[in-house]
Amino acid sequence: MVEIIKGLQDVIALETHISYIDGENGILRYRGIDINDLVNLPYDSVSYLLLKGSLPDVTELATFSKKLKDERVINENLIQAIRTCNFNIEAMDALRTVVSHMSHCDPDLNDNSHDANIRKSTKLISRFPTIVASFSRIKNGYEPLMPDTNLSHGANFLYMLNGEKPEKTVTEIMEKDFILIAEHELNASTFSTRITASTLSDLYSAIISGLGTLKGPLHGGARMAVMNMLDEVDSSDDAEQYVMDLIENHQKIMGFGHRVYKTYDPRSNIYKGLAKKLAEEKSDTTLYEIAERIENTVIRELVEKRNKPIYPNADFYSGVIYKYLGLHPKLATSVFAIGRVSGWIAHCLEQYSDNKLIRPRARSV
Amino acid sequence: MVEIIKGLQDVIALETHISYIDGENGILRYRGIDINDLVNLPYDSVSYLLLKGSLPDVTELATFSKKLKDERVINENLIQAIRTCNFNIEAMDALRTVVSHMSHCDPDLNDNSHDANIRKSTKLISRFPTIVASFSRIKNGYEPLMPDTNLSHGANFLYMLNGEKPEKTVTEIMEKDFILIAEHELNASTFSTRITASTLSDLYSAIISGLGTLKGPLHGGARMAVMNMLDEVDSSDDAEQYVMDLIENHQKIMGFGHRVYKTYDPRSNIYKGLAKKLAEEKSDTTLYEIAERIENTVIRELVEKRNKPIYPNADFYSGVIYKYLGLHPKLATSVFAIGRVSGWIAHCLEQYSDNKLIRPRARSV
Repeated sequence: MVEIIKGLQDVIALETHISYIDGENGILRYRGIDINDLVNLPYDSVSYLLLKGSLPDVTELATFSKKLKDERVINENLIQAIRTCNFNIEAMDALRTVVSHMSHCDPDLNDNSHDANIRKSTKLISRFPTIVASFSRIKNGYEPLMPDTNLSHGANFLYMLNGEKPEKTVTEIMEKDFILIAEHELNASTFSTRITASTLSDLYSAIISGLGTLKGPLHGGARMAVMNMLDEVDSSDDAEQYVMDLIENHQKIMGFGHRVYKTYDPRSNIYKGLAKKLAEEKSDTTLYEIAERIENTVIRELVEKRNKPIYPNADFYSGVIYKYLGLHPKLATSVFAIGRVSGWIAHCLEQYSDNKLIRPRARSV
Repeated sequence: MVEIIKGLQDVIALETHISYIDGENGILRYRGIDINDLVNLPYDSVSYLLLKGSLPDVTELATFSKKLKDERVINENLIQAIRTCNFNIEAMDALRTVVSHMSHCDPDLNDNSHDANIRKSTKLISRFPTIVASFSRIKNGYEPLMPDTNLSHGANFLYMLNGEKPEKTVTEIMEKDFILIAEHELNASTFSTRITASTLSDLYSAIISGLGTLKGPLHGGARMAVMNMLDEVDSSDDAEQYVMDLIENHQKIMGFGHRVYKTYDPRSNIYKGLAKKLAEEKSDTTLYEIAERIENTVIRELVEKRNKPIYPNADFYSGVIYKYLGLHPKLATSVFAIGRVSGWIAHCLEQYSDNKLIRPRARSV
C-alpha cells in the first residue's frame, strides 16, 4: 500500500530549469540567479530571463521591451467586456474573464509551437496591467487610459491606474514587486497551468487555470487578506494583542507561514526593506510599525516560544506596500498576477517542450 | 534521490470516495455502482449520485431535477457575451468565457460553504447545455431558444441546439453519453479543478480550470480529433489502409489508448453498442462500419501482433455517435464538458470538505 501524502507536500512532481528554492536556508533563484540580485533589474529583464533562460543583453532587452510595449493596448471588445463586469467582484475575476475573451480573436490560439507561444506570451504579459488598470478605472467611474510606451512595465501600470505618472521610488517598488513575485517553482497556480498545458490545451487556457488557482486565500488571495487584516489594527500597541488573540483562538495569521520555507522567506526580507523605505519617504510610518509589531509578536510567540517555523511570507510586507501605494484590496491578487504571469508562461513553455500528460491516480476508499 | 515519475503516471495523489477504476480488468464505478448499471439511469440521478454520494429516491430526484430545470435560463448579459464571441473558436472557449462571466453576478461567488456550493453547482450543471446550444445557434445565424422544462437534461440540450424535440433513441443516447463521461477519477481536468479548489478559490474558478484542461487533444479534445479523423476515411476498405499508414508513420491514432486502461475501456464497449443502434436506426451504417474497421485493424496490428494495450477509449465511438447526431466537431469537447461538470463538482466538494493545499515540489536541474 503506497502512502498518500496529503496535498502532495514535499512530493517531487517534475524537474524544472526555471527556479530553485532552498526552504531550509531561505534561498530563491530564477534560472540560477539569486532573488537579491534579480530585484535590481528591470521587470522586462527578469521576464526575458524566465521565458528564454538567460538574461538579455542591451539589444535583446530593448527589442523585448519594445515588443511588450507595442502590445499593451487592448481593443474595444475587451474594454466592453470590462464594462459589463459586476464591479463588486475582485479584479481577479474580471482579469480571468477578459483573458478568456482575449483568446477568442488570437489567430495563434491553438498553435502550440514555440514561436506562436512567444507571441501569445508577449500579449499576455503586456496586457495584464492594462486589463487590471482599466477595470479599476471603469469601476471608479473614470475612463480607461491608453498605455504610455515611454514608461516601464511598473510605471505604466501605476499611470494607467491612477492617471498620473508615479514617483521614482514608487515605480521602483512596483517593478520590484513584480520581480519578487514573478516565479516560485511548483506553487499551486503554476502546477495548475502545467496540468492544463500537459493536455496540449492552449496557453490562454493554461494561464486562466493559473488565475483561478492564484485567487484562493491559501495562495495569491492571501495578499488581500493581509490588507484587510491591517485595517483591523489601529496602532502598533493594538497589534500585539491582535496577534495574541489570533494565536489563542488558533486562527490563521494571514501573511505568515509557508509550505516550503522553514525560515525567513528571502522575498519577505526584501519586501520589508521596501515597505520601510516607502513609509519613510511618505513620512507615515504608523502602518509599517503595526506590521513590524505583528511580525515581532508572531516570531516571539510562535517561532521562539513554540518552535514553529511561522515566518512572514511574501504576502505580508507586500500587503503593507500595497496599502502605501493606495491599491484597493480587491486589486491585490490581480497585481500579484501581473508579476506571476511570466513565471506561469515559462513553466508552460517548459511543459510544451517535453510534454507528458500529468495524470496521477486516486485511491478509491 | 527520489525518483521522479513523469506525468505522475500511476502516482496516487489523493483518496476519493467518488469513483473507482480497475484499469487491468476494465471496471469503472461511480460511488460503488458499475457504469453498466449507471448508464440506464437518467443523467439527473447520476449527477445527484456524484454530488451527494447515493442515488436519489423518487422524491429526491424530482426535487433535484426541478431545481436543475429552474436554473436552465441564462440572462441577457450572458447571451450578449456569447454574441461577442469570435465564432471560429470552439464552443469550449466560449463556454469557458461565459462561465467566467456568469460568476460575476452570483452572490454566492466567494462563499465556499457546502450549501452555497450546491447552489452554484445547480446553476453550472443546468446552464452548461444552454450556453453551448446558444453559442451554436448564434454562430449559425439563429436566435437562441429558451429551455424546455418538460424535457430531460439530454433532450433539452438537443432541442435548444436543433430547434426540434429529439427522437426517443437520440435522447436516450445523449443522456447516456453525459452519464458515461460524467466522472473518471483523477483525470487531468479533474485534478486541475481540485488544485484550484485547494487554494480555497471559488467553485467557478475551479470549474474554469477544468474546462481549459479538458480542451487539450490529449484529453477531451480527442473527441473532436476522432470526428476529424473519421472525415478523412471514405469507406471501411479505406479504413484499414488509413490505420496501417498511421502505424507505419508512428502517428497517434485518435480515440485509442488510455493512461489507466490496459484492456477495453468499459465505456467504449457501451458507446460501441449505442453507435451501432443509432446507425441501424438511421439506416446508415457506413460510418459505423468505418469505425469498426479502424478498431479491428488497431486491435490486430497493435494488440495482437505487437502486444501493446492500445484499445478504443471513450472518445472513439462517442466521436462516431456525435457524427450521427450531427454535432459540429467544434462543439464536441463542450458536449463532453456538459457531462463531466457533475464529476468536477463532486471532486471540488470533496476537496473543500477536507482541504489541504495541493502544492508539490519541483526538482531544480
